Amino acid sequence: MSIKFYTSKTSIGIATYIALEESGLPYERIELDFAQQQQTSPEYLKLNPKARVPALVIDQGIITETPAILTYIAQLAPDSSLALPTDPFEYAQIQAFNSYLCSTVHVAHAHKMRGSRWTDDEAAQKAMTADVPKTLSACFELIEKEMLKGQWVHGDDFSISDPYLYRIASWMEADGVDPQKYPKVLAHRNAMADRDSVKKVEITYQS
Amino acid sequence: MSIKFYTSKTSIGIATYIALEESGLPYERIELDFAQQQQTSPEYLKLNPKARVPALVIDQGIITETPAILTYIAQLAPDSSLALPTDPFEYAQIQAFNSYLCSTVHVAHAHKMRGSRWTDDEAAQKAMTADVPKTLSACFELIEKEMLKGQWVHGDDFSISDPYLYRIASWMEADGVDPQKYPKVLAHRNAMADRDSVKKVEITYQS
Repeated sequence: MSIKFYTSKTSIGIATYIALEESGLPYERIELDFAQQQQTSPEYLKLNPKARVPALVIDQGIITETPAILTYIAQLAPDSSLALPTDPFEYAQIQAFNSYLCSTVHVAHAHKMRGSRWTDDEAAQKAMTADVPKTLSACFELIEKEMLKGQWVHGDDFSISDPYLYRIASWMEADGVDPQKYPKVLAHRNAMADRDSVKKVEITYQS
Repeated sequence: MSIKFYTSKTSIGIATYIALEESGLPYERIELDFAQQQQTSPEYLKLNPKARVPALVIDQGIITETPAILTYIAQLAPDSSLALPTDPFEYAQIQAFNSYLCSTVHVAHAHKMRGSRWTDDEAAQKAMTADVPKTLSACFELIEKEMLKGQWVHGDDFSISDPYLYRIASWMEADGVDPQKYPKVLAHRNAMADRDSVKKVEITYQS
């Protein structure tokens, strides 16, 4: 089976990139240049009408949306660090955390640069941008106090929630969130940075 | 096992309510009155610090976020209409669709009444509200053209994506979206309205 992984280096695609490295699955990475708007090229729109990344293309078709992609990779790599719990409640904790990241935390972040998704009014877009440090800090407050259960997001066992949180937490400084206020999130980010998968991804994008 | 289902009748909780009815699982429904701000009561915040619905409370703890809740219910009811596919790609299609609903479609809808989540600026909130018909129509355009595969969202087989789409599609008129432009979405909404599960939920809230 072949996996084609469409991504861009400034996007949430890095969570999927790390997960693919953790999985040990073979895959081919295709970088889209957002500065050149390659995500809206006719060829890419034919593959993915959402004009977003990440996306996985396999023989059966395309998979989009980070929570679905991460779960798919984990299902294909049951012997890797990404192995999914068989208990439905434990599995639900992973899916609930990832849903929170995609529907609330990533959305809060998107109001900084992507306000045009919700209004054409430039003054309103500026007002949204101005409030990002506040709304995103509220998210990290909840993650710090209520969600992080141990060394990894869900406790002692690594999971697909970990690369996802790592990627979003890497935006904290640029989004006006003070990482020092969230020591557990910061410790998690540092622990992630020590993993071979993350080192490989960081080196790829630095070179 | 006991399932306590926290919801409110004006919320996305209706998707979970329909799924619980489809599942055949026993459960207890607890309605929170948002007009009375019961979702921010100290008792409820202790259960669910997110101050949102829906939530399921079971012996092991709480499950939040609609995509995670729907998947959990489906896992507990493998002989019901909600049965999950075993093929990872087919399963990913369900999760990708539900992720799109929670991260994009529901978020577009929320800009109508919940702009304060992203800015305190009242003029900006009004600008967001004004653009909801446009942004939400773009979502339904994509759902109509690219996502609906058959009688049900993913084709011939009913799934947890169906109550979720039904609930969000029920907001179309009030959100300034013309359902006549999306005949497949409208046919899906009508097919859902014919199911016993949906009839029961509608009757409950009308009485």
